[in-house]
Amino acid sequence: MLVLEFMAVIISATYGFLLAARAKMDFIGSFTVASLAAFGGGTLRDIFLDLHPLFWIGKPHYPLSVFALCIILPFLTRLLPRIKPILIYPDALGMALFTTVGTAISLEAQPSAFIAVLLGTITGTFGGVLADVVCNEIPSLFTPTPFCATCAFTGSWLYILGDHLQWHQTALASATILTIVVFRILSVHLNWKFPPIRDPG
Amino acid sequence: MLVLEFMAVIISATYGFLLAARAKMDFIGSFTVASLAAFGGGTLRDIFLDLHPLFWIGKPHYPLSVFALCIILPFLTRLLPRIKPILIYPDALGMALFTTVGTAISLEAQPSAFIAVLLGTITGTFGGVLADVVCNEIPSLFTPTPFCATCAFTGSWLYILGDHLQWHQTALASATILTIVVFRILSVHLNWKFPPIRDPG
Amino acid sequence: MLVLEFMAVIISATYGFLLAARAKMDFIGSFTVASLAAFGGGTLRDIFLDLHPLFWIGKPHYPLSVFALCIILPFLTRLLPRIKPILIYPDALGMALFTTVGTAISLEAQPSAFIAVLLGTITGTFGGVLADVVCNEIPSLFTPTPFCATCAFTGSWLYILGDHLQWHQTALASATILTIVVFRILSVHLNWKFPPIRDPG
Repeated sequence: MLVLEFMAVIISATYGFLLAARAKMDFIGSFTVASLAAFGGGTLRDIFLDLHPLFWIGKPHYPLSVFALCIILPFLTRLLPRIKPILIYPDALGMALFTTVGTAISLEAQPSAFIAVLLGTITGTFGGVLADVVCNEIPSLFTPTPFCATCAFTGSWLYILGDHLQWHQTALASATILTIVVFRILSVHLNWKFPPIRDPG
Repeated sequence: MLVLEFMAVIISATYGFLLAARAKMDFIGSFTVASLAAFGGGTLRDIFLDLHPLFWIGKPHYPLSVFALCIILPFLTRLLPRIKPILIYPDALGMALFTTVGTAISLEAQPSAFIAVLLGTITGTFGGVLADVVCNEIPSLFTPTPFCATCAFTGSWLYILGDHLQWHQTALASATILTIVVFRILSVHLNWKFPPIRDPG
Repeated sequence: MLVLEFMAVIISATYGFLLAARAKMDFIGSFTVASLAAFGGGTLRDIFLDLHPLFWIGKPHYPLSVFALCIILPFLTRLLPRIKPILIYPDALGMALFTTVGTAISLEAQPSAFIAVLLGTITGTFGGVLADVVCNEIPSLFTPTPFCATCAFTGSWLYILGDHLQWHQTALASATILTIVVFRILSVHLNWKFPPIRDPG
């Protein structure tokens, strides 16, 4: 779980950094957005569940790594020809990893499966929503765009089911992550979405 | 108090759902906005006062009810001819119920009456402000619009006064709720508001 | 430290009030923005570090003072000829005071110097960012504007260094505050800033 969490932090921070670069922010802005993307969802989960120290305060190498990443990435990104078509992959993977870790932690901290799924989904999606808001992108949770929170929600229920059936933890985590990533990428490419609610006015 | 709180959750969630429907969101968007309206204020109060588990984590049927509500409401709203003129009533009632419950809980958790009134007002108004912000309405707290937080603030002081005079709890809660609802609806219909601060520049 | 904190609250609340007055808000709006500016950063720090009661809940005269300030200031500001050129001074001083207090508190609550600097910087800058966002100013953290968080960050490291070398607390606090204020005011007047990140797209 620790390895997954560290991977999710690095991948989400990279996603935040790329968003900030596209919005032409400076170093402070990129570190802020990268931190929001990497720590936003997990911080909300830890605060809601009263888990202290928060996961990034108890592991100071997490924010330190994000700080270093924001110093190194400006040099590496010159290698990337285009950003936009690539953003979907770290976004999907970061969401899948955080949802899985978040569901597992929430299930340990309290007994309700529905609450665990909600907090898993929040852990997976809230960081990205925060980063989007700050960079003035329309957050994809709030308009009929391809499934995003729905992928996290579905994957999270799969985790709960597998946990209930006592699947092996590694297999269960892998299945959950794979499901979310594939579901998310298919949703974007095939434009799967909910219809808007019919306005009764 | 528990009955009041559950009513406030359902009414505020309905308010959030109607806002989301008007903004043409999808299911995920409507569930998010309904949850923000129903749980936003109380979550802030519980976190500020370090009350755990948060009221909706300790009572998982609250978010479950909001989830069910967002599935059922799209069918029911077809019966409603117009939304805008009706929104004011669930808004006012939800605010009154949450302010009363929030003041009562805050008064138990710490000794200062002023802090209890502030947290009661936050419990009553913050969910609505959050839902407004997400739906791109201008939050009514921040421009000279009809009294909103002022109604919650006044009702909250009435509760403190009655509690100090040891009124019967049911009578006190009813009087507080009625005061806030009537004050709020009169404010909207008669357009009672503060003047803007004279800009000294 | 207590005297510094109270000064920081009053100065930041004044900054928030002046912002709200410029945005033509009413009394409720000005009290909300003043409170966000005065309590936003410290509240986030206390919640992140699980320090309870929150600094303004444990000291109810803080919000009471801000409340009184928002009643008194509309009369006093008629004396001020222009607001915009003056805003920078309470802003810089409030940031310096909060950063110093926030770093000191965070260093006591947990062992990592890097986390203490991050939380000191958040304590110093987050209230101002919140107030800016609510008043629809572009928050200065997120575009290449003169150094702001960078000043808090630098001052916070100075505090950590001095604390490590066991400087006398009063001297250390004064040096930190002076450094941040001078660095911030110079940054604004000489327009010191980071370049934007080169967009690799």
